[in-house]
Amino acid sequence: MAELCAKHPERFPSFIASIAMHDLDGAVDEVDRAINELGAAGIQLFTNVGGKPLDAPEFRPVFERMHELDKPIWIHPARGASMPDYATEDKSLYEIWWTFGWTYESAVCQARLVWSKIMTDLPNLKIIIHHAGGIVPFNAGRVDAGWSQMGVRTSWADYTNLPNELGRSHSEIFRSFYADTASFGAAAPLECAREFYGIDQMIFASDSPFDPEKGPMYIRETIRAIESMDLTDAEKGQIYSGNLLRITGLS
Amino acid sequence: MAELCAKHPERFPSFIASIAMHDLDGAVDEVDRAINELGAAGIQLFTNVGGKPLDAPEFRPVFERMHELDKPIWIHPARGASMPDYATEDKSLYEIWWTFGWTYESAVCQARLVWSKIMTDLPNLKIIIHHAGGIVPFNAGRVDAGWSQMGVRTSWADYTNLPNELGRSHSEIFRSFYADTASFGAAAPLECAREFYGIDQMIFASDSPFDPEKGPMYIRETIRAIESMDLTDAEKGQIYSGNLLRITGLS
Repeated sequence: MAELCAKHPERFPSFIASIAMHDLDGAVDEVDRAINELGAAGIQLFTNVGGKPLDAPEFRPVFERMHELDKPIWIHPARGASMPDYATEDKSLYEIWWTFGWTYESAVCQARLVWSKIMTDLPNLKIIIHHAGGIVPFNAGRVDAGWSQMGVRTSWADYTNLPNELGRSHSEIFRSFYADTASFGAAAPLECAREFYGIDQMIFASDSPFDPEKGPMYIRETIRAIESMDLTDAEKGQIYSGNLLRITGLS
Repeated sequence: MAELCAKHPERFPSFIASIAMHDLDGAVDEVDRAINELGAAGIQLFTNVGGKPLDAPEFRPVFERMHELDKPIWIHPARGASMPDYATEDKSLYEIWWTFGWTYESAVCQARLVWSKIMTDLPNLKIIIHHAGGIVPFNAGRVDAGWSQMGVRTSWADYTNLPNELGRSHSEIFRSFYADTASFGAAAPLECAREFYGIDQMIFASDSPFDPEKGPMYIRETIRAIESMDLTDAEKGQIYSGNLLRITGLS
């Protein structure tokens, strides 16, 4: 990726490094190499590592290093059919694990980063969530009013004081994530994400080439969706590039 | 419920019968009793029965009877902490099973009713999904463009011809569900749901009394959210009562 960017800087101004999280000493070294030596704009992590959530203590050094470096983490969902949707089944049928499971897991990941206090301990972490924030914006009311009653639904753990331990309100911390625009051309979810995260936290992404046309469709349809929103040119500029340049430090 | 409606018809014009699905001969009889004898406007089912999905063949007679009676089915999510969010865990932490799990499961339920062809075999089924359609509207692009590639992500089952067996496009069938307005006061998700299902398929609901104020808050905030939407008085009337009267046959 670094070579490609060096060869074609007019097409590829920077890249994101995918970090293998299985060897954790190696992971932090690779973060340093990718960002400091190769010039990566940030890193990508998946929502789980071999089935383990990102708030597991052993992954903390990677988050701490990214916080020190002040570069964003792109979080991509990861889930397969082996995560069943019903207690009586052992697989997720009909590719539901992909259509809904990925955006569910992206929301779950945010919740784990908030409630495990990683976002409290590392308050300037910049985390970009794929697919318009992964159902969190659609569940704004459940996040706000629902979790304002944290603990009332649980007898096997004591969550009731957890909201007081976060430093800020949980609603504010959920709104500190960034959302990309990869909604596959649907505009209403992008409006929903803008309402939740704010225009300063929307980052262009298209999910190309994973569309039926193998590339052009999601780019074209994402731009069409953004253009259909009630936005000023300055706000569109923020989504297309301004916000990304700001949080990566690229020029 | 029937007694209460008979006593206070000016406050309770009708009721919905909750049907126990564990005794299936009994379930169909109870549907008949509730609707034909007691005057229920419809029935409520949960998204799973002891962990089993609603498209299991043994539940089909209840759907067939509701299709014959032409009355709606309200579908309520059901999921507990025992459905884990990660392969390495045995519980869903921090009440995520509630905040995001319930709306995920409501979406899964719709997908199962579509892809198992229940909605094809019983094309006039009227199904009302809690919480603004349970993340389906937010995932409109994934439903449409994503599932237009049904089967490409699966090697262990052959789904490639399934879309052709549905009678209509899967996108059209997903849009044949009804969504209620219980978004806990958030307006953007309701806009998202209206965009997906259409104004004719939005049904007022508040989730009262499960709010921090134990009743009034979700009613007040849901009305506030609807009033903040760009709707004509006639469209608001459809959401508040018109659509429900039409699909239940109540006057």
